[in-house]
Amino acid sequence: MSEKYIREKRRMELIGLEIPVISEGDNLGIEYLADLLSSYSLRDGDIVVVAETLISKLEGNTVKKEDVKLTPLAYELAEKLNKPPEVVQVILDEAKEIVKIGDGFIITETKHGFVCANSGVDESNIKDGIKPLPEDPDRSASILREMIERKTGKRIGVIISDSIGRPFRRGACGVAIGVSGISALWDRRGERDLFNRPLKSTEVAIGDELASAASILMGESNEGIPVVIVRNAPVPFGDGKGKDLIRSKEEDVFREDR
Amino acid sequence: MSEKYIREKRRMELIGLEIPVISEGDNLGIEYLADLLSSYSLRDGDIVVVAETLISKLEGNTVKKEDVKLTPLAYELAEKLNKPPEVVQVILDEAKEIVKIGDGFIITETKHGFVCANSGVDESNIKDGIKPLPEDPDRSASILREMIERKTGKRIGVIISDSIGRPFRRGACGVAIGVSGISALWDRRGERDLFNRPLKSTEVAIGDELASAASILMGESNEGIPVVIVRNAPVPFGDGKGKDLIRSKEEDVFREDR
Repeated sequence: MSEKYIREKRRMELIGLEIPVISEGDNLGIEYLADLLSSYSLRDGDIVVVAETLISKLEGNTVKKEDVKLTPLAYELAEKLNKPPEVVQVILDEAKEIVKIGDGFIITETKHGFVCANSGVDESNIKDGIKPLPEDPDRSASILREMIERKTGKRIGVIISDSIGRPFRRGACGVAIGVSGISALWDRRGERDLFNRPLKSTEVAIGDELASAASILMGESNEGIPVVIVRNAPVPFGDGKGKDLIRSKEEDVFREDR
Repeated sequence: MSEKYIREKRRMELIGLEIPVISEGDNLGIEYLADLLSSYSLRDGDIVVVAETLISKLEGNTVKKEDVKLTPLAYELAEKLNKPPEVVQVILDEAKEIVKIGDGFIITETKHGFVCANSGVDESNIKDGIKPLPEDPDRSASILREMIERKTGKRIGVIISDSIGRPFRRGACGVAIGVSGISALWDRRGERDLFNRPLKSTEVAIGDELASAASILMGESNEGIPVVIVRNAPVPFGDGKGKDLIRSKEEDVFREDR
């Protein structure tokens, strides 16, 4: 080895933003956030990552305890799951399928297709409601992106993020449940590495990696950072969707009853 | 809402570094990388993320095709997996257990405890060898961290990263297989959110989130960025290990024969 060097090749920045605390009763709408973000100096290519909790609150997507229609199954599972029957009912209402259930836990496939604990429903009540995931995170991402692009004239990407547990590995990680304006699943088949070999991984979950990166700054919602701007990420513009990151039951070798 | 503001609360930077291309025959040792990194202007609190491929190459952890002792099982599986029997044998040698196997794929639990495809063994030959994961990524991380700290006087963290596929979600994501100097699994039990509610997720896979963030710049090894510095990450110093992120078979509801 004749030359010994180390040099900076690429720099990416993540900027954690604080905004006024929003409650689920405020019903401010996505436009409120688009206004706030448009007043920040966004640049072309910035990727705006927003915590799903904030989106659900802006969209007023909460269920009031007294509006929950309880079924016998919710009562039956309430004890097993150690949760109020109303919360269990919302978990069931949000689920397409129960994937695993046991003492104190329930893992479902949500109506969106995400496999996660509690259908992504916040376990604790939020003032006067139970908070499911946003109704259609890809649509929310797309609306937010279009509003910001119209207001600022900048071309940006948007990710709606959540934090979920995983088989095989401990701890929660950020994932992208809604995506707009960029690739979510980056298909790199056909590309070659430095030694001209085919790449080891051909499909990169770039949306989830961006959500995980943002999650480092967001923390677990006590940091007061519900929005993170990712600047200079080497991610292609595109029409990626959060749905692209969902492995269908049929192609998932870890789903038991395919 | 009387006040309408948006402000920067936290900024984190990722710096992708280029170093001379290293081949597996070079046997340069971890100290070579420690020297290179110590010549870069590291700061206190920087987290150095290194791709596992680079570590394996530095440590000379490759198996020569002619040294592989083939068993009947390797021959039997070679066709099913569409891989050379030597590669299959190394995959089996690296495995503690076969978790799932099917046409064209094998998912194992490696001797380290990672559940991943092909025991993390690089599928293609690398010049004259087959490349397993580093022997003990936590040890490698610790050696690299201590060398750099001794040479620079800075307190840093080190992560050895890999990129793996997952159940339920498509695409590969960065994960931390070796960790030193920082928390890997961040236990946030007992903390409360902005509304004084218990946190939704109490254990954060911060090591994996950092590896995913770095992976955005590393790409799939054709970017020539095997090392990423994460600067200003709000991650506590600690004695975290890559092993902390492994969910044991017994506590994993997705392992069939617990």
